[in-house]
Amino acid sequence: MSKYTIGLDYGTNSVRALVVDVATGREIGTAEWTYAHGDAGVMLSDDPHLARQHPADYLTGAETTIRAALRRARRTRKRFKADEVIGIGVDTTGSTPIPVDADGRPLALQKRFSRKLAAMAWLWKDHTAVAEAEDITRAAATKRPQYLAKCGGTYSSEWFFAKVLHCKRTAQEVFDAAYTWVELCDWVPAALTGTEAPGELTAGVCAAGHKAMYNDAWGGYPDRRFLAAIDPALGTLRDRLPAKAHPVNTPAGRLTEAWAKRTGLPAGIPVATAAFDAHLGAVGAGIATGTMVKIMGTSCCDMMTVPLRRDLADIPGLCGIVPESVLPGCYGLEAGQSAVGDIYNWFVNYIRPGGKDGSHETLTRDASKLTPGASGLLALDWNNGNRTILVDQRLTGLLVGQTLYTTPAEIYRTLIEATAFGALTIINRFEEYGVKVRQIVNCGGIAEKNPLVMQIYADVTGRPMKISRSAQTCALGAAIAAAVVAGKRAGGHGTVRQAQKAMTGLKRKVFRPDPSARKTYKRLYPLYRRLHDAFGTPEWNGNLHDVMKELIAIRDAARRA
Amino acid sequence: MSKYTIGLDYGTNSVRALVVDVATGREIGTAEWTYAHGDAGVMLSDDPHLARQHPADYLTGAETTIRAALRRARRTRKRFKADEVIGIGVDTTGSTPIPVDADGRPLALQKRFSRKLAAMAWLWKDHTAVAEAEDITRAAATKRPQYLAKCGGTYSSEWFFAKVLHCKRTAQEVFDAAYTWVELCDWVPAALTGTEAPGELTAGVCAAGHKAMYNDAWGGYPDRRFLAAIDPALGTLRDRLPAKAHPVNTPAGRLTEAWAKRTGLPAGIPVATAAFDAHLGAVGAGIATGTMVKIMGTSCCDMMTVPLRRDLADIPGLCGIVPESVLPGCYGLEAGQSAVGDIYNWFVNYIRPGGKDGSHETLTRDASKLTPGASGLLALDWNNGNRTILVDQRLTGLLVGQTLYTTPAEIYRTLIEATAFGALTIINRFEEYGVKVRQIVNCGGIAEKNPLVMQIYADVTGRPMKISRSAQTCALGAAIAAAVVAGKRAGGHGTVRQAQKAMTGLKRKVFRPDPSARKTYKRLYPLYRRLHDAFGTPEWNGNLHDVMKELIAIRDAARRA
Repeated sequence: MSKYTIGLDYGTNSVRALVVDVATGREIGTAEWTYAHGDAGVMLSDDPHLARQHPADYLTGAETTIRAALRRARRTRKRFKADEVIGIGVDTTGSTPIPVDADGRPLALQKRFSRKLAAMAWLWKDHTAVAEAEDITRAAATKRPQYLAKCGGTYSSEWFFAKVLHCKRTAQEVFDAAYTWVELCDWVPAALTGTEAPGELTAGVCAAGHKAMYNDAWGGYPDRRFLAAIDPALGTLRDRLPAKAHPVNTPAGRLTEAWAKRTGLPAGIPVATAAFDAHLGAVGAGIATGTMVKIMGTSCCDMMTVPLRRDLADIPGLCGIVPESVLPGCYGLEAGQSAVGDIYNWFVNYIRPGGKDGSHETLTRDASKLTPGASGLLALDWNNGNRTILVDQRLTGLLVGQTLYTTPAEIYRTLIEATAFGALTIINRFEEYGVKVRQIVNCGGIAEKNPLVMQIYADVTGRPMKISRSAQTCALGAAIAAAVVAGKRAGGHGTVRQAQKAMTGLKRKVFRPDPSARKTYKRLYPLYRRLHDAFGTPEWNGNLHDVMKELIAIRDAARRA
Repeated sequence: MSKYTIGLDYGTNSVRALVVDVATGREIGTAEWTYAHGDAGVMLSDDPHLARQHPADYLTGAETTIRAALRRARRTRKRFKADEVIGIGVDTTGSTPIPVDADGRPLALQKRFSRKLAAMAWLWKDHTAVAEAEDITRAAATKRPQYLAKCGGTYSSEWFFAKVLHCKRTAQEVFDAAYTWVELCDWVPAALTGTEAPGELTAGVCAAGHKAMYNDAWGGYPDRRFLAAIDPALGTLRDRLPAKAHPVNTPAGRLTEAWAKRTGLPAGIPVATAAFDAHLGAVGAGIATGTMVKIMGTSCCDMMTVPLRRDLADIPGLCGIVPESVLPGCYGLEAGQSAVGDIYNWFVNYIRPGGKDGSHETLTRDASKLTPGASGLLALDWNNGNRTILVDQRLTGLLVGQTLYTTPAEIYRTLIEATAFGALTIINRFEEYGVKVRQIVNCGGIAEKNPLVMQIYADVTGRPMKISRSAQTCALGAAIAAAVVAGKRAGGHGTVRQAQKAMTGLKRKVFRPDPSARKTYKRLYPLYRRLHDAFGTPEWNGNLHDVMKELIAIRDAARRA
């Protein structure tokens, strides 16, 4: 008899449930539901930096998608029964903190706060807390530099403490009503298992470590004294945060009778401790020591893991280095690019090149016919700043090499190449610090849909680009966590590694580097790196007089060939 | 009784005749004729660098346009009679050398050469002689550096000796058949006056000085020994070139009976020594000491004059410094930008932004609504290289500051600003070497048609932008030269200065700098100059880390305002 787990994947605009066969990884039923509140699930205001979500949507979403996914599973496999589901796993966006009362119930679910934006979930991309993030960074830089060394040197306005502090400074009545604050990714498993109460709630180490400076090495969350110095209220909050945070192979609790009824699932099945989408996405794509998982969409996350027993330096420019944030027993390493698909989308949707016909399809077709280097163009991929390795949002795009004959397809291809050069810079940074990248597995929309992008990435990095078999690696990763907390005896798996072996895989198609393209990109990358360092680092000192000339020389060589 | 002169303006695709009242400058008749041979007057081959013209077109063009312009003049002024025309002036493109026989007759007019491309006029934009230009530059750099100091440090493939030498190396039979070579601008007046024979032909100092290294200071054309060392055949040619070259107030001869019959003009009226279009265009726009004339079209020529009695340094980066090439008694100084309108045209015609509606009109309208600096963008105007002050064709465009929200109108405006920054760099270069720019007069298509460009130029340079009253300054300049060679007694003028006073003027509309825009551009220009020097000069050494940040700061300030 087959056994199944469910992965629940909370995205920015919708939630998805995926029913997975734990023996094979086959996905037999899935359903997606767009959040009901706000603009496609995101509540906005006059302030363009504000982005909130209504916690009620998380509950409605779980019920709706699990029921629908089970129905579809029955359609795929006639013999499938809901009581063959042995566990649930969850991944979410983050940092998405929610103010809750002393019972762990979101304030937004109380009538008096039901329309108050500050009482909602503060979505990951809410940037209202810029000033607070700067205060925290400044405090940590002088008093606790070790905290910053694990998160790229800067505490972000997207993260937990910055948002909490901004609420205190701008919506005192909400802040005062909140007993504590809980990450969305901790709150969902708690709600499903009736463990929301602050003493009972299981915190995930992924959110705590990457967004709230949690680390067992210094006793968990930042110490009380440090937080209280920033604001006494943060000191009080510190006392109410969990003492310990856990990896995804830890059960958060068991599905309540009430939730069993709402979903049609068996009561009492375990729900795994949750993690962020990129982290469980990496698990679903088969991350392991030496395997980099690239989650390629509007932006890109580059995930790696390193066994805890190995010495690991603080790699400068990484967004986060957190023990067990991806795999138990390993450091989870997160790097990334602030914009990838978003840059291609900008060119198509904002510049709208090529007259009537400037779609991604047309530009991709025309760009595919071009020889590497033949345009004479080079770009920096910084239209939305640079996450890794510069950790600097105040950077912008650059295009060089235009003539009076430069075409849209040439620019489009150059933008793809720029993101690939950015990806190579990240790979190099890992390897410079001893983290060898032996295999690259891609997943996400762009990896699925755009072979030109994958081929250019292979040619630029000189490495084969593999594609995850699943198109839903985040939900699949959550289902893997579920199979592990269900345990071998229940028909699940003993370890995440074993679950990955059974449940993940690669597509047959591999994009391999073309030697001649590779040769050209080897000439272009040093020029990219020169511009990168000249515009992106205060240390660089030099001259760029040969950049345009070298681009012309590369162009002439490519056109002759 | 009114008196008139005719200006004949030979352009790249067509020739124009203009009938002008010498007392007022009023243009009472004009006609244009597109050359019959080749593609809109330009004969092409498989080699994209080749561009030739058929000399027969120059003769047919003179006859056709003069006759038509006289007809139109009669329609404008009933009392007008062709025998009130007292002189003819000529301007042409250049360097456009023509191989001629011992009678000064173009080889192309002989049957055996009538289809031979090497026997045609070698149009200014013919770039087949790159290798020969390099040979000449190398020879001059070591043996006669003073020659190069007057022409920007590099002898161009567009110029006289490079083209002649390329003919010798690639079309020996044409070269052998040619007794000598004559610039188009010398040949037209000679043809009209029957003075083509090498001993009789009057050479203009504009073409000789700017394109053939002629200078009275070293005895005219480059010395025989220097030329013979490059190729003995150039030494032989040297003996057949005129001993002396002349400014435009020198008569080249008198209209022959034959040409009087062909055109309907009185025989015996003087024809002035010719000059290039930009140089006589400057005269027609009212150039004087302290007045810069900008001829703004696909590219831009920046012309100035300095009295010969003043000390004048060799200004680095200028295309040419030639005594009397514009006004008698003054140095003619030529600077310029390789592309201006061509950059805007590239964006509209090649990138075709904005979906269906990316015309110059729409982009201009949208760009007019933008606040200076608010886009956060900055560009270099080098899509076609940089003529002044870097004299480097191997430079390309650059755009920096793009975000995920950058629009086509923002880029369009930024490209206009880039050309204005390039213009300011030229103004500054003149003034750094003691040539004060007290007034700027614009003419040409862009000055006529695009008020946004003129306003941005005013705001960027901090100087009022004035527009020449005539839309045909080149032909008007030629008509002014004609009025001077006709002389006061015949009803013309005693000097070019007097003729300009009577015949040129400005439009009433002046574009004045807006103080607030000026302030922003004063912050932007140093950034432009940093990029200019970093990418354009081997001497620069430094860092560009603050460029993007400063652009963001300027953007934020502009958006707040």
